[in-house]
Parts: sequence; structure tokens; C-alpha cells
Amino acid sequence: MTRIPFEQMKQTIKQAFLNAGMPETKADVCAQIHTESSCDGVYSHGLNRVERFVDYIGKGWVDVHAEPSLEKNIGNIEIYNGKLGPGILNARFAMNRATELASIHGLGMVSMNNTTHWMRGGAYGWQAAEKGFMAICWTNTESCMPAWGGKSEAIGNNPFIMAIPRKEGHIVLDMAMSQYSYGKLQTTRLKNQHLPYPGGFDNEGNLTNNPGEIEQTRRILPMGYWKGSGFAVMLDLFSALLSGGLTTAQIDKNGYGSCGGCCQIFIAVDPLQFNAASFIEKAIQDTIEQLKASQMAEGVDRIYYPGEQSLKTRYENLEFGIPVDDGIWEKVKELAKNY
Amino acid sequence: MTRIPFEQMKQTIKQAFLNAGMPETKADVCAQIHTESSCDGVYSHGLNRVERFVDYIGKGWVDVHAEPSLEKNIGNIEIYNGKLGPGILNARFAMNRATELASIHGLGMVSMNNTTHWMRGGAYGWQAAEKGFMAICWTNTESCMPAWGGKSEAIGNNPFIMAIPRKEGHIVLDMAMSQYSYGKLQTTRLKNQHLPYPGGFDNEGNLTNNPGEIEQTRRILPMGYWKGSGFAVMLDLFSALLSGGLTTAQIDKNGYGSCGGCCQIFIAVDPLQFNAASFIEKAIQDTIEQLKASQMAEGVDRIYYPGEQSLKTRYENLEFGIPVDDGIWEKVKELAKNY
Repeated sequence: MTRIPFEQMKQTIKQAFLNAGMPETKADVCAQIHTESSCDGVYSHGLNRVERFVDYIGKGWVDVHAEPSLEKNIGNIEIYNGKLGPGILNARFAMNRATELASIHGLGMVSMNNTTHWMRGGAYGWQAAEKGFMAICWTNTESCMPAWGGKSEAIGNNPFIMAIPRKEGHIVLDMAMSQYSYGKLQTTRLKNQHLPYPGGFDNEGNLTNNPGEIEQTRRILPMGYWKGSGFAVMLDLFSALLSGGLTTAQIDKNGYGSCGGCCQIFIAVDPLQFNAASFIEKAIQDTIEQLKASQMAEGVDRIYYPGEQSLKTRYENLEFGIPVDDGIWEKVKELAKNY
Repeated sequence: MTRIPFEQMKQTIKQAFLNAGMPETKADVCAQIHTESSCDGVYSHGLNRVERFVDYIGKGWVDVHAEPSLEKNIGNIEIYNGKLGPGILNARFAMNRATELASIHGLGMVSMNNTTHWMRGGAYGWQAAEKGFMAICWTNTESCMPAWGGKSEAIGNNPFIMAIPRKEGHIVLDMAMSQYSYGKLQTTRLKNQHLPYPGGFDNEGNLTNNPGEIEQTRRILPMGYWKGSGFAVMLDLFSALLSGGLTTAQIDKNGYGSCGGCCQIFIAVDPLQFNAASFIEKAIQDTIEQLKASQMAEGVDRIYYPGEQSLKTRYENLEFGIPVDDGIWEKVKELAKNY
């Protein structure tokens, strides 16, 4: 397995983005976030998405020069038009603005319509937590999963993120609505392995943990069966209705690729306006202690709180370099060449 | 199967609550909500919870005379102490207050600490939707489910609710964090049936759809495995940190029974301050149409939007009477007797 140092990966991605026509500062931030995602172990939405993002710029599906513009203000809520700008930059702007509103009002909400793929949703949870804010955010997507009871793709995979700042390591949940991502199906298939639990349906409509069969039917399983399916529908409608943007069904007709024209909600809360730091620390500590004190299940040697594994992976990858798929790394280096 | 007319069930429950010492108006509202829950098909948290609620009153774990008191106000946010009053009344008060704040500010949030079991969480989603508001609410609970990787109970089942008002039937998601409730395990076991999908672990640590085996190990499965587990942790911490209340781990030490001293978050949004009614209607319609247009899975003849089945059950039960377990119904009639 090839491992690439953080800074080398970031500079390579940045050069690829510069070559694609991104202004310097924007290329730098986007490269940083893509690299951080890979560094945290979310390989599917870091380095591995660079090629597609560059492709979208070339097709005019992402406007590298666009800036979000304020459409409406309602108290501690602001609604922006993302103008099909880079999803990472729009989302970072939105979460930052939500934390600014939360500083003033205790809670701030920013909704963003007409934006593009934000890559790793968890990035914006970590961003808020780094600033000391609790946060909730989610996006809708094009349809890529059957609703519960259906065979054809009808709902989005709409990731949902919750974050809580904590000195010893932030607590961050980053959860898509499918049990497994297509990225996980692919990597599992390439290793000739099976999924640990069923991840979708085979051709006969039976649940299977054979990733290749699921890739063929495209019937990936919502997490919790009907629960993830219903949750995806609600997240989609909430994001569209609170931002004035497109629903999943409407994105499907939009023709700007994955998440082109999607909408997102960012909620930030300043916990110290609610309670003293000592109260917060105790609540979190009691919770983590209770998790860690669990009797372990068969074959398990440690129970993680949400976000703990990302942090563990981050430190490993910062020390030893970020693992890459050689083909993908070569492709990105190609995109970063000077012609 | 015995079916009881709505009004007869409500009056019987109300009399049971009056006998337990509840003031008239409070007994009426609580009886209404318990009956509505059974009427909507949430039998586990309607009539079936009357006996336990009366027991909790007798034990002093619920104070029928307590009223929530405002502890703090931060802009469009209010924090209340529920004073161990009846969870239904505290929650109805909180959601109503959240909608009032949303009327003024676009969005309103009420958090409630030191409250008691709210019974069916969906009730407060329907309540907000009836008033024309979108809503999100959740509660924490005592620990009743192992965290992912654990064998012993460490996390709450923390239901999460999202609601959107709609003329032709509100869209309401009411989702606990376990794949199945203990109520579902019990009723499935009594029918000598298996769960449609695995709902927990057997004695050897294997997933099983045999409800009796899961009841023995008490290792119920979080929905989506690690996802529901992480989500439960975040909902718990968010509710405690935003209300100044107890976490699941702290409720466990509290000694006031199920959900005694729990805390809850109620967020309401006035959708018409965000977008015009015509925009909202189209977004919802496009979404429901896309769901309904799905190719059906094997053996499925209809795909439901969240809340649609509750409404269908409601109309059936209003017409034909609400199905009851004869033993439970006799017990509640007993509690309603005049001595």
C-alpha cells in the first residue's frame, strides 16, 4: 500500500484544481478539505473525488468563480443561493456563518440552495466543533437508493451530521442513509470479500452481503430498512423547504451530475450560552465512560464514541502518510501536471 | 380481536387518571393523547402504557400537579424545567411554545429538562403539523440498548421525530433508535412468529430474528447497526447539553423509572416564512410522486411516505374501533372503577 504525506497530497490536489481554473485561495481550501477527508479515512470523498470534481468543472456543472449570495434573512436564519459554486466552499462558508449567528443568538441556521457536492459531510461538523460549536447539518442528493418497498432509485443518500466540541477529541457523527456506500461495495468486491451485514438486494429480491450482486441491482439498503428510507425523505424535504431549493426528485431532472443544485442545512449552537463548561464536560464524560464500561460483544476489544475512529485514523495517517489507490493517485498527479 | 370506540377508550383512560389523582383538564389531555396513540396504531405507547403511568404517579415518580417553569431564554430559544410533571403535558406545552416562538422568529426551540416519559414521540410532530409548523423533536431515555460492539445496555432508544404539515395528510417520521421495540418483540413472540429481519443477538452473539432469544439476552439491535448506536449517543448528548438536563447515563442512576428525569428538544419552523405555499406544495408533491412511481419490490403493492400508514390506521380504527389486548383493557377498566 502506497502512503502519501499529507502536504504532498494537498499540494498535488491543489495543482490539479489550479489547472482546472480555480483561483489560488479556493484551490488551496478545497485541496485541504479533500486531503483532510482522506487523512481521516474517508477515502471515498477525499483524493478519490478529485477527478470527478475536475470533470464537473470542465462540464460547467461547478462554477469555480461563484460566491454564495444572501437571499433572505429571518432572525437568526440566513438563506443563501450557492450559485453552483464549489460545494466545499459553499458549505464551509455556510457553517462558518451559522457559527457567527450562533455566537450572537445562541443558535444560528444557514440554509443553502443551488449548491454542489460538499464531498465529506463530516468536514463541516468538525469545522464547527473546532470553533467550539455544536452543529447539525445535512444535504440532499440526487436519487441513488430505492425507497423501502421499491426496486428503483427514488431517494437520496442524504448524509446527516451531528458534532459536539470536546478538548480531548470532538464527538462527530457522519452518517449517510444507506447501510453501505457504493465505495464500500466496490472496495469489498475488489478484495473478493463479503460485507459484514447485508447491504442490499440481489436479483431475486433477497437481502445479500455480496457486494457485486448489489452493484448489479443497484438496490442498496437504507440503514435500518424502512427507518433510513423515511429519514432520507424527511431530510430531503426539510432541506428543500428551508432553503427554497430543489428536492431529490427535482435534482434528478437537473442534469448537473451528482448533487448538482442540491440544498443543505447548517445549524450551529454555542453550548456555553446554554450551560457552563464544567456541566458540559461532565455530561460528555459520563456518557463516554458508560460506553467504554460496556461488556464487550464477542470479538470486540473496544467501543468507540462517534468520531473517535476518524481521529485515530487521522493520527496514523499523519504519521505514516495517507494510503492511496495507486491508479487514482497517478490520475490525480496527471491532472496536476503542467502542460 | 376486541375493538373499542375512541370515545369510550378515552373516557375510561381519563377516569383511571382521575382516580390516580390527576386534575380534570390534565387527565383529559393525557387520556386524549394515549387514545390517539392507540388509534394511530402505536399500541405500545397508548392504552398499553396507562397502567405503568398510573403506577409511576403512585410511586411519586410523576408529579401530576407540576407545571414546567422557564429557566432560561436565549433569543428564540427557551429552556424549561419539567419538574417531573406528566411527560405528555410537558411535551405538548413545549412543542406549542416552540411553534409560538417560530411564529415570531421563523424558528423556535424549546428544551425541557427534568421531565418524564412523553409516551409516543410522534404525537408532538403531529401536534406541530396540525398547527401548520414543521418540527423536529427528540428525547433521551434511560439506557435500554447495547452500544454497537457492546453486550450490556449503555445507550437510550431516544426516538427522533420530524414532521411537515400537508393538507392531504401530514408527513411525520417517528423513529426510535432500535430496529424493533421490546413491544414488537413481545407481540411477535406471542404469535409464535419471527421478526422479518434480525432484531438483536442470541446467546452466542449471533444476529437472530427470534424475538424470544433477544428478550433473553436484552441485546436489541440499533437500527443500521453502528449508525443507530452513534445517532442515539448524539441525540442523548444534544438533549442534555441544550436543556441542562440528565444524560442517559445519569438517568440510569436517577431511580425514577423509564425516562424519569429525561430531557427533550423541540424545534418548530414556520415554513411560510421561508417559502410560498405553492412552492412547498410542489416540493412535497414531486417527492411523494417519485416515491409512488417506484418500481415495486417483490410482494409489495404500495410505497408509503412517512406518516401515511399512521393515518390509514387512524381512519380504520376511528371507523371500526381501536383494537385492544383484552387483558390490558380489563386492567385499565379496573383502574377506572369508582371505589
